Amino acid sequence: MNILDIIAKKRDSLELTKEEIEYFVKEYTNGNIPDYQASALIMAIYLNGMNSREIKDLTLVMAYSGDVLDLSQFGPNVVDKHSTGGVGDKVSLILLPTIASLGIPVAKMSGRGLGFTGGTVDKLESIPGYKTNINIDEFIQNVKKVGISMIGQTMNLAPADKKIYALRDAISCVENIPLIASSIMSKKIASGANKIVIDVTVGNGAFMKNKEDAQKLAEQIIEIGELAGKEVRCVLTPMDEPLGNAVGNSLEVIEAINFLKGDMPKDLKEVVLELGANMIQLAGVGNNIEENKEMMLEKIQNGDAFNKFKEMVQNQGGDVSYLDDIKKFKKSKYTVSVATKKTGIVKEINAEEIGKLACYLGSGRQRKEDKIEPEVGIVLNKKVGDFVEESDFLAYICANDENKAREAVNKILEIYKIEK
Amino acid sequence: MNILDIIAKKRDSLELTKEEIEYFVKEYTNGNIPDYQASALIMAIYLNGMNSREIKDLTLVMAYSGDVLDLSQFGPNVVDKHSTGGVGDKVSLILLPTIASLGIPVAKMSGRGLGFTGGTVDKLESIPGYKTNINIDEFIQNVKKVGISMIGQTMNLAPADKKIYALRDAISCVENIPLIASSIMSKKIASGANKIVIDVTVGNGAFMKNKEDAQKLAEQIIEIGELAGKEVRCVLTPMDEPLGNAVGNSLEVIEAINFLKGDMPKDLKEVVLELGANMIQLAGVGNNIEENKEMMLEKIQNGDAFNKFKEMVQNQGGDVSYLDDIKKFKKSKYTVSVATKKTGIVKEINAEEIGKLACYLGSGRQRKEDKIEPEVGIVLNKKVGDFVEESDFLAYICANDENKAREAVNKILEIYKIEK
Repeated sequence: MNILDIIAKKRDSLELTKEEIEYFVKEYTNGNIPDYQASALIMAIYLNGMNSREIKDLTLVMAYSGDVLDLSQFGPNVVDKHSTGGVGDKVSLILLPTIASLGIPVAKMSGRGLGFTGGTVDKLESIPGYKTNINIDEFIQNVKKVGISMIGQTMNLAPADKKIYALRDAISCVENIPLIASSIMSKKIASGANKIVIDVTVGNGAFMKNKEDAQKLAEQIIEIGELAGKEVRCVLTPMDEPLGNAVGNSLEVIEAINFLKGDMPKDLKEVVLELGANMIQLAGVGNNIEENKEMMLEKIQNGDAFNKFKEMVQNQGGDVSYLDDIKKFKKSKYTVSVATKKTGIVKEINAEEIGKLACYLGSGRQRKEDKIEPEVGIVLNKKVGDFVEESDFLAYICANDENKAREAVNKILEIYKIEK
Repeated sequence: MNILDIIAKKRDSLELTKEEIEYFVKEYTNGNIPDYQASALIMAIYLNGMNSREIKDLTLVMAYSGDVLDLSQFGPNVVDKHSTGGVGDKVSLILLPTIASLGIPVAKMSGRGLGFTGGTVDKLESIPGYKTNINIDEFIQNVKKVGISMIGQTMNLAPADKKIYALRDAISCVENIPLIASSIMSKKIASGANKIVIDVTVGNGAFMKNKEDAQKLAEQIIEIGELAGKEVRCVLTPMDEPLGNAVGNSLEVIEAINFLKGDMPKDLKEVVLELGANMIQLAGVGNNIEENKEMMLEKIQNGDAFNKFKEMVQNQGGDVSYLDDIKKFKKSKYTVSVATKKTGIVKEINAEEIGKLACYLGSGRQRKEDKIEPEVGIVLNKKVGDFVEESDFLAYICANDENKAREAVNKILEIYKIEK
């Protein structure tokens, strides 16, 4: 087999065999194929596409390129959840304890934030003492003991995907449905679940900017799942404005805690219930989506969901006194309210812009090595559709740097589109 | 300017500005853009194309990426010649002395062979003593003194093209009209001519496998020429079977000498006359193509062309006694005649296959560092259209290795397609 022939085939829009895909992924991952050849092939895939069989083969080869977690001891219905990414997305922090409080085992590995979107692991780490890098045995033991564990990717999961993703990022080949679908599914398959709910975000703060593309991505993901013997459900959720009100690590944890205590922003509530109801259905615990949502609300209202979250945090070394008293969370040096000079309806709050601004304040990373500041970020006080009058507060800036805070105020005034 | 944005534009089939093309070529050549990003952009160009303006800009930036030869002292009509490559192509060795014998100055830099096609420099070096790596001053002096000099590429001509070409070769992006056209024209512009005749070869032994593609390449080349202020003429010539009879370095020099002495194989004669007649016209020495051909034939018949060749060889340190007595050329250890067992008409002699076979015998290089054996190769005794009977000799194998010679005999019997 020869990489030049493989590149030439895809360049000419021909179908690659399973063996060719396997050869490329393996030899590229182990360094025998140089980046520049992988790069040419990826651009050819980007432009000429792949059929479902090719995408399935690519997914499985990447999934099995490293360790694959075995969760079969938790029964045939281990459910995982993944989001294609957004701003202010604290859904996992709320949803997974709620699901676990219904007796559904949750063994969840999450990522860190990169670029303008946050990562669940960074958010969890803003709870003092919470350990995200425990080993696999402990992880499994935790799930057995309290029914839930949420950690970082400690295993060598889908290393081929990691390498290919990094290259895609460096050659403008990220936003491509076959490549996104295979990347997501390879990680999910390696994570050991056999039932998967995917939150496909749509809007200016997501990879998929419009509903048609999101629909296509969802279909692609479901098809890979079918071909790979995994039951997959996709839920399209809007990501034009940030989800909920808080953007920033400890700020989002606080919002999640408040949510679990019953204070539920409307948009966030919808997403949590919709994803959760589907997970419950896949887990075989409830067949009716609306009834499943009720079950979740009950678990939130009677405190079971919050208690499960506390149990998990305690079990993982976190200081639960923070959960009981959110005032204990470290505050940023400056909190500046942003007052509008306009009167009208909020028409747009660009999620990507808010994400980038929070990142600039210190909540995210530009590079993997960057340190984050958990306490900084933005809390939206007004959302799309809200009526505002002159001197109403649109948002609060939480910053540790005075100049950055001042810049952020002006930026917020630009980002909020208000029309009469 | 940002290479990621440039890749994304071409990925999305958008037109690149002159500044973007300049930025890419310069930064890639000086090593600031890594191969893998160049690779993605080149694949996007291959698949999404470039318009004439973009191709012209690419050509000029590559042409001026290194030294540019100034031949203006030889007047406004300095004519150069280039072939898109073939097997058995000794045209320059015959054509250029003939042209020079008409008083047209010839300052020609040629390449070495790589892959299955030969290179004029390698052929010239099979004449003992002939120096192909003289410096530019001497090169210019030689043209002034005897009206012709043929050397290797001693200058740093179009280094950007060199680097991009090497990458294209390593990522299956060679056969692409915009990329081939800009590569050829950048080298020709850097070589200092302002009138250029391009031999666009067509057939299984050429880059362009069919007439339509060759026509497109020719149009592209002419358009670049117009936009770059160079007068360019393209002549399509067939390259299905090897040109003339000899394939291999000294074997081709001998054929060229015999040609200049009046022994002209029909196909080779046609190509030499057609290209030469166009060069004469561009040089402003004769306006009628048919009359120009007659002028050339006269120069061959009266010995002027051969004498000009001798003059050049002598001037460049070569031993002219070899030209007067071709028996002096070193012979290969084995010369094996290949007799057919069939009777019929020769329908096909695949040029690429013959080129590869000659290369295998030692006449060419697989890698730049490889040494060649000037005396090995293949002499065709029968060409397409010839009638053959059982035990007629199809060809002669000139080899230094007995096993290779034996293999070559069988290979020749396979390559010759003979039908009743």
